[in-house]
Order: sequence, then structure tokens, then C-alpha cells
Amino acid sequence: MVCRHAVAGRNLPHAGQRGQPDRPDRAVEERAPCRLGNGRRRLEGSERRGDRLRPSSPGGEAARTGNPTLGDKVTGTPVDRASGRLPGQTAEAHILSDLVDLLAAGRSGVLATVISTDRSVPRHAGSRMLITDDGRRIGSVGGGEMEARVAAEADACLAEGTPRLLEYQLVNPGDGDPGVCGGRATILMEPHMPPSTVLVIGYGHIGQAVTDLAHWLGYRVVATDDRPGTLDDPTAADLVVAGPVSEALEQVDLTPRDHAVVVTRNTDLDVESLVCLLTTDVGSIGVMGSARRWETTCQRLRELGTTPDDLKRVASPIGLELGAENPEEIAVSVMAQIVALDRSTAR
Amino acid sequence: MVCRHAVAGRNLPHAGQRGQPDRPDRAVEERAPCRLGNGRRRLEGSERRGDRLRPSSPGGEAARTGNPTLGDKVTGTPVDRASGRLPGQTAEAHILSDLVDLLAAGRSGVLATVISTDRSVPRHAGSRMLITDDGRRIGSVGGGEMEARVAAEADACLAEGTPRLLEYQLVNPGDGDPGVCGGRATILMEPHMPPSTVLVIGYGHIGQAVTDLAHWLGYRVVATDDRPGTLDDPTAADLVVAGPVSEALEQVDLTPRDHAVVVTRNTDLDVESLVCLLTTDVGSIGVMGSARRWETTCQRLRELGTTPDDLKRVASPIGLELGAENPEEIAVSVMAQIVALDRSTAR
Repeated sequence: MVCRHAVAGRNLPHAGQRGQPDRPDRAVEERAPCRLGNGRRRLEGSERRGDRLRPSSPGGEAARTGNPTLGDKVTGTPVDRASGRLPGQTAEAHILSDLVDLLAAGRSGVLATVISTDRSVPRHAGSRMLITDDGRRIGSVGGGEMEARVAAEADACLAEGTPRLLEYQLVNPGDGDPGVCGGRATILMEPHMPPSTVLVIGYGHIGQAVTDLAHWLGYRVVATDDRPGTLDDPTAADLVVAGPVSEALEQVDLTPRDHAVVVTRNTDLDVESLVCLLTTDVGSIGVMGSARRWETTCQRLRELGTTPDDLKRVASPIGLELGAENPEEIAVSVMAQIVALDRSTAR
Repeated sequence: MVCRHAVAGRNLPHAGQRGQPDRPDRAVEERAPCRLGNGRRRLEGSERRGDRLRPSSPGGEAARTGNPTLGDKVTGTPVDRASGRLPGQTAEAHILSDLVDLLAAGRSGVLATVISTDRSVPRHAGSRMLITDDGRRIGSVGGGEMEARVAAEADACLAEGTPRLLEYQLVNPGDGDPGVCGGRATILMEPHMPPSTVLVIGYGHIGQAVTDLAHWLGYRVVATDDRPGTLDDPTAADLVVAGPVSEALEQVDLTPRDHAVVVTRNTDLDVESLVCLLTTDVGSIGVMGSARRWETTCQRLRELGTTPDDLKRVASPIGLELGAENPEEIAVSVMAQIVALDRSTAR
């Protein structure tokens, strides 16, 4: 069926993508397979890739190399002139790397691709446009009214989290068509969201195992520990914060899609962590420990004014009940619980 | 309390060892951390280490190097004379590596260690003896009647799977003491069992992820696939068998401690795998696939004469219900189920 207007979001079957999109950095991960305890992530990981996203000054790296970046586009630096490339072509050549940078910075975007055309249309199959989560467009799927309508679908596509197909007939603007070229175009909208974050508080044996497994599963992992030297060795974490939990939370903006794994060495740290975490929007909070330890922690939190509703946000003991004994087994129990939460939320 | 006779097995608190001993190759694993997709395992893994266990001829490697091996001891080759070392000392120097070799060959043993003494005893704290699962002794904890009693405890210690302390007073044989030296000795008995095996049938995306995760968890992994070339790349498996399932089962002796993970690409292979697996003593069999695919498989198995009791041995779909989507998530769901099975069996 060819619609004259953008059809209401129609889900497209997608390999391995029933409930929510596969984590969008998976393609990157597969080129550099995640290894448990892979120290290279500190150099190659998202924090490094994110550099391209930062707005650069006219005299900065982008201007020197002549490579426009998303940051340049955001600030409007006219580096395209310096490179001598036409802006449209240059933008399309960078769309995928801009998307990678966007995701690495914890942001979202929708990739719109012309996947089929019939008769006369402004752009042929393969043309692409990235619509970032703040509405900026990079590249083009044909310009004009059709492109504006595509861009207008981006927010809904991101909110739903599933790909959709849009079909446009460009014949009679009087009938509502977004053009007069005479043909029609089918455009695939693919939402790309950054992996959700697993914040690991306490980098002992269990914290390390959870970090390794969460990284392997494609999560962005932030590991923090207050003990000097604990995080000196290479880690699979995307970001490490050596210091108190409050310091980690200054560097990480936790959202309802994210998870906190509290695997510390005593109740003092549990209390300190929870007081901080309960001020965030983090989606789940799990705390390791015995029932007795948890009761002690609860008692102290109540004395500090934590409400019963806030306490309900915390699960303790953390993890599915597997009878897990060693750190790796406990990590499986913790991450199985987080996967189940994510996949149930996505449905 | 000092007993005059070996006390009935008394469980010793042991770090991370409530239900069953930590998998005994963990110490080895920690020296060479398991990495997902770590190809080196094919060279460094247990199959290679197992070489030392094979009985060697008098003119073989052991005789040339002068290093006695467990194999030499088994066949009684008098290589100790060639090395000029006293047999007892030589044996003790090799006890830990002999234990590693024993486990790598899929066998079990009990390590007996004198951990404290008082007054006159034949051997001081630190003396060790390995009792293999076929009753052979390597090293010594003092010889004589006491050592015979220690060795006699080994089977029960292995069967129970938990460490135990034995205390002996060596004063008055007339009262049943196993000696007359005048002192007493405390001996720690530690059971060491090989990791249980996860047999992965079908080395596609999911088979690979299960292999990586099972290896990380400390299981011995055997991966098999009938497609030529599928297993050519480095894998985390300890043993790979390129060929039909029947061929893999010729090389692996599955016990009730082991698990079969059937993640093939069609029902033909599911049926072929299950017909073979149901002739073994494997502890659990899980099959990936939809309810409809499983019904087709069951129908064909019934036509082939599989009994309802045999079908009850098979779980399908495999894995805990997490809503898992991608291979890594499915691997977590599969291995979470296997950990839960192992830890419930151990209690």
C-alpha cells in the first residue's frame, strides 16, 4: 500500500530486535570483540570516541584537518569551505561516524535511509539523513517538504524505539503530497539509542566480574571505588571514577534506562551510595548483601530521612536467585536480572 | 577436641565454598584470566596439560628429562633413579602439578595436608599427599597406619565434595591410635574435582556466546558443529569437534555433572543430537527453539521410539525466561539456568 502521507509508525521486522533495538554500538563492538577484562577499552572506548562530538573552536582540530564534525555542525563552524567539499556530500560521508559519536556521548538519533524509489524522486535509494535527538539534521533524503515530514517523525520513532517505514508519493501537493516530482519513495527510519549504563559501585572481585559481563553484554559500564589504586589496572569499564560515589554521580547522568549495582564492602558505603543514588532517576538499584546487612542499611537510611517509597526503589539482595557462589556466578545472576528488567520494560 | 580416631567428616568453612568446592581449575584460570573468545585456550588448555598424565614408556619424555610424572608413577617406571632424587621429595615437588594434570584429564583427587602438629609426629606441617580417584598416593603425610587412615577417607571426602579436618593422636596403638610417636597431627582433606563439562552443539552466534560465557564461568567447554570451517577460528572451547554429534560423544564422556546445550539451526540436527544425548548420563539437556519447533522435534523423537521418560530429561526452550534477544543475553539466560542447576544439586 502506498500512502499519500507518512503512515503511522509501522514496525519493521528486524533481526534480533523484537522488543527494543539491539544496542546500537553492537556493530562497533563486533569489530573489536568485547573480551572480559579487556583493558583496551580505556583507550578505544566511547569516552575517546566522544571527542568528536565536542564543539570545536574554529582554530581547533577540525579546522586543521579539514574534517567537519558533528561538533562543528552544532556550532556552525564553516569548515566545509576549508575542505573544499560540498556540505551535503561531506555530511553524508560522515553520517555513520557522527552517529557513533552521538551515541558515545550518550545521545540518541534516528537514521533515515531512502531504501526504494519509483520514477522521479529527488534522491535515490541509499541517500541518508541523521536526525539527532535535538532535531538537527545531517545529510539529506531529498530536501523540501518530504524531508521535513521525515524529520518530524523522528521523535515518535525514538520514543517507540522500533524502526518504521515511511512511504511518500510525490505527485500532487494539492492532495497533500510532499512534492511534485512524479515518483514515490520509501524511507526507513531507524532509532539509535546509546547503550544504557550500568554503574558499578565497589570494584572488588564481584564489581570486576559484573563490569566484565556487563561490558560483554553491550552496556556502557561506569565503575567506581573509593579505595586508592583499586581502579589502576586495566578494566573493561568505559569510565572509571576513583573516589566517592558522589564524585562518580557528578560525571554520570543516570536515567530511567540505567542501572546501579551496589557491591561494596560495608554498610557505611551502602548507605552513602544509596543516599546519592536516590537523588537520581536511575531505573534500578540493586544492593549486594545478607538480609541482616540490608536491614541495618535500611534502618540507617530511615534515620537519615529516606522515605518508604524511596526504599522501594532498591532491591536487596541483588540478582536472580541462582545459588551463585563465586564472583562470575554472582555477575551472571546480577546481569540476568538487569537483562530481564530491560527486556520487560521494552515490551 | 582431639579425637583418637579420624573424626567423621567435619565441614571446614572455606572462602566462596558453601555448596560445593569452587571449580578446582580456578587457580589456574586466574593466572591466565579467561577472556571471552580467548583463542589461546586451544594451546594452553586442559587438553594440552593432560599430556603429563599419560603413561610414558621408559625411554619416553620423562626418562629423558628425568622428571617423573603421574603417568610414570602409574606405570611404576623407576625414573626417580635416573634423576638422582629421592622419590618422596620428588613426588611432593610435583604434587600440585600432578593434581592439575589429574583434573585436566577429567579425573578427581583429594589433597591431604598436615596443617598443624603438636610434639613428636612423623611429618611436620606443610607435608602433603595426593590421593587420586583410583586410590593411588603421591607424597606422604607421615606413612604408616595414620597415612593409611587418611587415604581411606578420600572416597568419602570426594563423594561429599567438601573439605574436612582429620585429627590424630599418635600415642597408644592399644587405644586405637595410628602410631606411637607421642604427638598429634591435624590434616586437612581437600577434594578436587574437574570442572563439569558444557557440551555446546551448534557453533553459530549463540553457540559461540554460550562457549565464551561458560568458559569464563570456569566450565570445561566442548563445542561441536557439523559445518566444515565453523570451528576453524580460535575459540574459548577446551575441545572442539568438527563433525556430527556422534563423533563429539565418542570423545567426551558425559556424566550427571555435565550439561548439553543444543543450539542448532534446524530440527533435523535437534533430533540427531537428542537421540545421541539420551544414550548418555548427561545431567541436563536444553534445546533452543520455539514451542512449535520443539513439538516437531518431540513428534519425530516419539516416532523413533524415544520414551516419555527420556523426553522429560530435555528442557525446551533452554534458559531462564529473561526475554533475552541477542546471543549474549541468550547465553546469560542459558548459563544462569545451568548455574542454578549446579548450585541446587550441590546443596
